[in-house]
Amino acid sequence: MKLASMNSGARDGALVVVDTLLTRAVAVPGIAATLQHALDHWDTVEPRLAEVSRALNAGQCSDAFAFDAHEAAAPLPRAYQFLDGSVYLHHMEKARRARGADMPPNWQTEPLMYQGLSDTLLGAHDDVPFVSEDLEIDYEAEIAILTDDVPMGVRAADAAAHIKLVMLMNDWTARALTRSELPKGFGFVQSKPACSFSPVAVTPDEFGAAWDGARLSLPLLSFVNGKRLGCPDAGADMFFSYPELIAHAARTRRLGAGTIIGAGAVSNRDAATGHGCIAEARVDEQAEHGAPRTSWLCFGDRVRIDLQDAGGLSVCGALEQRVTRAEA
Amino acid sequence: MKLASMNSGARDGALVVVDTLLTRAVAVPGIAATLQHALDHWDTVEPRLAEVSRALNAGQCSDAFAFDAHEAAAPLPRAYQFLDGSVYLHHMEKARRARGADMPPNWQTEPLMYQGLSDTLLGAHDDVPFVSEDLEIDYEAEIAILTDDVPMGVRAADAAAHIKLVMLMNDWTARALTRSELPKGFGFVQSKPACSFSPVAVTPDEFGAAWDGARLSLPLLSFVNGKRLGCPDAGADMFFSYPELIAHAARTRRLGAGTIIGAGAVSNRDAATGHGCIAEARVDEQAEHGAPRTSWLCFGDRVRIDLQDAGGLSVCGALEQRVTRAEA
Repeated sequence: MKLASMNSGARDGALVVVDTLLTRAVAVPGIAATLQHALDHWDTVEPRLAEVSRALNAGQCSDAFAFDAHEAAAPLPRAYQFLDGSVYLHHMEKARRARGADMPPNWQTEPLMYQGLSDTLLGAHDDVPFVSEDLEIDYEAEIAILTDDVPMGVRAADAAAHIKLVMLMNDWTARALTRSELPKGFGFVQSKPACSFSPVAVTPDEFGAAWDGARLSLPLLSFVNGKRLGCPDAGADMFFSYPELIAHAARTRRLGAGTIIGAGAVSNRDAATGHGCIAEARVDEQAEHGAPRTSWLCFGDRVRIDLQDAGGLSVCGALEQRVTRAEA
Repeated sequence: MKLASMNSGARDGALVVVDTLLTRAVAVPGIAATLQHALDHWDTVEPRLAEVSRALNAGQCSDAFAFDAHEAAAPLPRAYQFLDGSVYLHHMEKARRARGADMPPNWQTEPLMYQGLSDTLLGAHDDVPFVSEDLEIDYEAEIAILTDDVPMGVRAADAAAHIKLVMLMNDWTARALTRSELPKGFGFVQSKPACSFSPVAVTPDEFGAAWDGARLSLPLLSFVNGKRLGCPDAGADMFFSYPELIAHAARTRRLGAGTIIGAGAVSNRDAATGHGCIAEARVDEQAEHGAPRTSWLCFGDRVRIDLQDAGGLSVCGALEQRVTRAEA
């Protein structure tokens, strides 16, 4: 099943069911007006949405309309919780090397994770405003999951059942500010503005065998101004799994329905897969050439993130965004 | 004006207007079903709520009922954003001394702030579940504000106008976990479970002259098992103001309506005002007696936080909660 939230003038958008090929959609106000409402009542709402999905894919929805990904907000245009892990240790090593920091304590025994902003999440085609190019603007291509209600203390073995939807994500980062913020110990406030999400959130079964309940083994493609920077496999080199991330987050608290959990910038040790963010590319270039060659993003630059199944189908739709100067 | 969200079975509670003395309330489903809805549409909703408030305080609401603070959820039972500053530097110094950490970089030029969890916020009389007493359970007595929509890059001088409501807050903290989490640099995930809030959120005018648009100058009282631990003045020794906190948070992003911003554990340099958390008391006891004397909280312990105006009126209602063992 594939779900999207269309721009509607309302802060939370309007929930629609989208077909497998991302060409047709149908509104479902009688089932759930918003994705948050659907997640709040998933056990009763999901079967009804699934029924609509089956009918839509069978060409049996007379009220279906053409799906325009440009009119899609983030699946959750605002969320009550966003937690982002950093479980591709290859990325962590390079990001830390780039800012001259050591690996964090306990990095081999528990996932690194921060509470991210979620009051405003960007759609897949929204412009991305930054106040200055001096912030060293970077992207991070990630895959995030959405949960229902998760009890405090859930074990990883029981956590997989709480993964309801999967989305692609761009975790925009102001690298210049991470160098001053992270040494304070309190995480990211100014250095990680709003993230962006794929037009569509999909149930894990849409990935077929590529989703094993804990990891998604497909390449995550990223492009800057049409040039491919990377295609790392999201299942390879993933040191902690999504269920382990959930269990870590829920150790001392319950997680509310609609919690978004990312796994960090996807990165493989195989250099041939390239990079899922600019910072890593610059670290490698520094080592190889004595200086970085890939520039930070500038106003007008375009970043595209996509994930395709074995048949070449874009499963969640692509993010395709332009970096812009924030209005004063 | 005073507002509360009554437990109703719905995740966001049911908005009511409460009278000045916190004795009577009236439901306002025809104006705004929830506080989030009110904040989403504050410009149009606030005048209508204010009209109800005037009528209620004049004894002219025939449908008013007795207000029971025990049935109040947090004013926002879940929120899209919670940011907590640490602007009482006296607290920061002691908290850091307690875990052997230095003061953070730039502590004199920009406020320390983290993104906190907001998917589940506790009501003023809810039990507070912890998985173990070994976590070194502590409270922090704070004052938080609620904003409407704040534009990116807002200046502090313009930020005060975005402060719509004020609440008391208990920022529950597992001190044992801060020692392992904060050195990672990514902030609090496991060490700061859900916060609690006063039964009522009030517009700043309810504080009269004690609110100057930037700071609230009244003592914040805290008690453990009936024994008063502190009464520091929230306006004294506040190094950065609420408008400065808003401007810091909004430097690279806009803030959505219903953003909660705390200012950290209230703490005065005047030792006679006591402490607003246990960690500070233990640091002082260590210095004076060679060992801490105040215990971390245990299951069954009760923490009370209140703030009274010059006439002795509890402006927001008290938080009065019991620490409990989380169910397995």
